[in-house]
Amino acid sequence: MPTAPANEARHRLINDVEFGDDVVVMSFTNLYGCQIGDGTRIGPFVEIQRGASIGARCKIQSHSFICDGVTIEDGVFVGHGVMFVNDKFPKATNDAGQLASDQDWELLAVHVGSGATIGSGAIVMGGVRIGDDALIGAGAVVTKDVANGAVVAGVPARLVQRT
Amino acid sequence: MPTAPANEARHRLINDVEFGDDVVVMSFTNLYGCQIGDGTRIGPFVEIQRGASIGARCKIQSHSFICDGVTIEDGVFVGHGVMFVNDKFPKATNDAGQLASDQDWELLAVHVGSGATIGSGAIVMGGVRIGDDALIGAGAVVTKDVANGAVVAGVPARLVQRT
Amino acid sequence: MPTAPANEARHRLINDVEFGDDVVVMSFTNLYGCQIGDGTRIGPFVEIQRGASIGARCKIQSHSFICDGVTIEDGVFVGHGVMFVNDKFPKATNDAGQLASDQDWELLAVHVGSGATIGSGAIVMGGVRIGDDALIGAGAVVTKDVANGAVVAGVPARLVQRT
Repeated sequence: MPTAPANEARHRLINDVEFGDDVVVMSFTNLYGCQIGDGTRIGPFVEIQRGASIGARCKIQSHSFICDGVTIEDGVFVGHGVMFVNDKFPKATNDAGQLASDQDWELLAVHVGSGATIGSGAIVMGGVRIGDDALIGAGAVVTKDVANGAVVAGVPARLVQRT
Repeated sequence: MPTAPANEARHRLINDVEFGDDVVVMSFTNLYGCQIGDGTRIGPFVEIQRGASIGARCKIQSHSFICDGVTIEDGVFVGHGVMFVNDKFPKATNDAGQLASDQDWELLAVHVGSGATIGSGAIVMGGVRIGDDALIGAGAVVTKDVANGAVVAGVPARLVQRT
Repeated sequence: MPTAPANEARHRLINDVEFGDDVVVMSFTNLYGCQIGDGTRIGPFVEIQRGASIGARCKIQSHSFICDGVTIEDGVFVGHGVMFVNDKFPKATNDAGQLASDQDWELLAVHVGSGATIGSGAIVMGGVRIGDDALIGAGAVVTKDVANGAVVAGVPARLVQRT
């Protein structure tokens, strides 16, 4: 696999990423330890963490954050400012009062099915499964699973339409 | 018109932008193909896309995203982390399964009237018209037009007060 | 006090910051005129303004914005994309039609008690006091005080559980 995007851009930090062919990564991005499939586009001000996996032909728009434990299938649209969460009760410190480390919490995986769209500003909680071709409205907070083709919106996200 | 901001700052990407006089653009910004009026200030971590137009004496705060099709009149306050949307049903790929291009969707314009304030974290959907001196509460998701001087808040945004 | 973080990272802007020991500051950050306590970690795409104070052993996650007037005690977790607000009715211009300056508005302080957690995408309004060990749900808009140990969520944030 290529170890670099197909394009050039300034102000990018890329470390230990497996790229497919023809991946485009914009400026002001911070990618490390993740996989990104063929033809996917990553906008500016995006962080993708170690352990995240992005499929082919996705669009990851500006200001989004994709954390460890998130698997995104092919053809998914992640809008601007979308935040993924992988921890149920994050705390800065552990019971001993020290800064929390990887040993102090349980990773909750997130799965986003192929063809799904996640609207701008949406938040996807840890442990959630979003079905194929589902549509998450802009600004929604997704706290439970979303069926294939379903449309959800609101805080917390509720079913608007089943297609 | 000037082709550069009035100030110096590191880590800026500015390409094909028409600036008015005395525009201040902070670091970590990505501006291209847009117009920005006299005296306006653009905070860090902001992207303004080709086709967007910003008036004079506006404040565009950090972490905001302003897309193609957005017209912002004079004296508008855009809070931190505000996301504009210009597409009703964004998809990563078209019906042929290829990455969607400009031919695959309809641009929905947004208009923000003079003197309006958009609170931090608000999301403004495509096709919406926000009136002069309107106030959009922080975190609101604006899905329909807002009258001149109206105050709206919530998800979706509802009228709180008509002034 | 140290005048620099304990780590090295590219693309950082740090000006007039008082650091405790062992502070880690990631890339693409904009910190000025603030105080940051021992062992705290600051993620990428974060801005912390003049007048903000962050305690020891905090985690300030990516894409967050912390403004003047915000005091964060020790051991606080600030999730990704969290926005603090310090002004009740922000406007771009003053009554004379000029760009608003520091003389044109009243700063509303925010206080976050030790051990609190603020979920990703939450917005904290000016004048709010968040108690020790309180938990703010992801995507919440916090418009009034939160008691010690309370759990709040929603837009506007409402009490979910008192611990």
